[in-house]
Amino acid sequence: MEHPYYHVNGDLVRADKATVSVRDRGFRYGDAAFETIRAYGGELFEWAAHADRLDRTCDRLGIDHGIDRDDLRTRIGETLDRNGFDDAYVRCSITRGPQSGKLTPQPAANPTVVVACKPLPRGGTAGGSVWDPPATPQTGETRRIPDESLPADVKTHNYLNGILARQELDDDADEALMLTTDGVVAEGATSNLFFVNEGRLHTPSTESSVLPGITRSVVLDLAAAANVPSTTGEYSVETVRNADELFVTNTTWELRPVAAVDGVEVGGGSVTTTLTERFDSLIEQQYYSE
Amino acid sequence: MEHPYYHVNGDLVRADKATVSVRDRGFRYGDAAFETIRAYGGELFEWAAHADRLDRTCDRLGIDHGIDRDDLRTRIGETLDRNGFDDAYVRCSITRGPQSGKLTPQPAANPTVVVACKPLPRGGTAGGSVWDPPATPQTGETRRIPDESLPADVKTHNYLNGILARQELDDDADEALMLTTDGVVAEGATSNLFFVNEGRLHTPSTESSVLPGITRSVVLDLAAAANVPSTTGEYSVETVRNADELFVTNTTWELRPVAAVDGVEVGGGSVTTTLTERFDSLIEQQYYSE
Repeated sequence: MEHPYYHVNGDLVRADKATVSVRDRGFRYGDAAFETIRAYGGELFEWAAHADRLDRTCDRLGIDHGIDRDDLRTRIGETLDRNGFDDAYVRCSITRGPQSGKLTPQPAANPTVVVACKPLPRGGTAGGSVWDPPATPQTGETRRIPDESLPADVKTHNYLNGILARQELDDDADEALMLTTDGVVAEGATSNLFFVNEGRLHTPSTESSVLPGITRSVVLDLAAAANVPSTTGEYSVETVRNADELFVTNTTWELRPVAAVDGVEVGGGSVTTTLTERFDSLIEQQYYSE
Repeated sequence: MEHPYYHVNGDLVRADKATVSVRDRGFRYGDAAFETIRAYGGELFEWAAHADRLDRTCDRLGIDHGIDRDDLRTRIGETLDRNGFDDAYVRCSITRGPQSGKLTPQPAANPTVVVACKPLPRGGTAGGSVWDPPATPQTGETRRIPDESLPADVKTHNYLNGILARQELDDDADEALMLTTDGVVAEGATSNLFFVNEGRLHTPSTESSVLPGITRSVVLDLAAAANVPSTTGEYSVETVRNADELFVTNTTWELRPVAAVDGVEVGGGSVTTTLTERFDSLIEQQYYSE
């Protein structure tokens, strides 16, 4: 999709007009909140949870943009419609807008709102996977930014921490498995991590510097519904490498199995299969039945 | 100066044309290097040091932009000339350019280069100060991002850490004095901190999560030339609050005295006066004599 339409400050525009001012605080400072959202059959997956998290991010950053979530949802819908996308990846960003060159922000009287999307064929029961092979995460030196420096429960345009981690990867790895400054496993650069040991599902607690991912939350609910016991906690890299099953989650990948961590092979298994099937059924029933 | 010219990707353009794509990694992720530079009488203060630091930032981020520093200097000069600015604040940014929506970057084949400037009357011997009253820093909860999460010796568009710290300030404070995650004094949100005790100059070591500021370095050199002994180290907030003299430095403020820390009054003194006079003389001789 070479030239999709973008929604920029209320207007649907082609890529060459989809710009922001160099004075925009989103450009100058990464001073912006965003969400990536999945559209299935033209509907937004877990819209309320994404809108809640976007609100929380804006609260934490003090971006009082005054834009109603129904308005945002309308803009996203218009972007999908204009591009003719049903199954798509959506990125929605809100910045404080263009301001003077002072670091201390002024009120967001003129916020910037950008919606971008691209087609993303659905995986699951009816199609192939949205990822190619299973993930091959690798640990490195870059530590997740601690919560006391940047809140871990928000999504902002300050993404260099994950970029630096990704740039450490060897050629045969495709996701950075990041540790906290305390040395325990946090999450992938753009994903949450799950593992299974003796039939129990584990994932790092959001008490650490871990994003409360929307797909992470859905997976924990699906586990409860399937009577798979689950625990959140603090885990060492050793524990993760020695797990029976391992997978990562995010909005784009849904549940993506892990083939190896730091080159140590990890298999899939019955819990991963069960949760993947339940996730696929959820999407199927919610967005594609009838 | 309502409508200055900006230099964007080789072109001098008015503010309304000074834009970057919403696909620019500088906007999406704050994935960009920058420098703020002072122009005195049309000349750039400490250009080589700024160009070196910009190179280091691009190295650390892996932004191989291929743009020669003389080319950058030319663009900055053209921006100052076109705007008719002699004494000015300059901000020069380099991003990896617009890319696909993957976090892992592609090579910077099409980097974005932005030069912005605004007039900044010179302070020093011939004029008033560039700051208004002395600074009133205040400590808060937001901790400086540790070096193991984001290198402390570079300047990037990931600035939310300092923004969050600034937003904690009470109305009577104007700079956030940030501590490291270990609880020692690091620096201001946009400044380095110096204090004087019993005639000796102190400033937090860059071994901590402290930016090696260009003005910081000039001040240490001026202290040596004036036979003022100096030490870099790790200091508690208590030590700073009880200092004999206190000032902050950055490219814009030069040396700016501190009136109070967390409301505790701190006076100026002979060392601050000596260093300020020497700094002013340096600028006078280098850029305004003859």
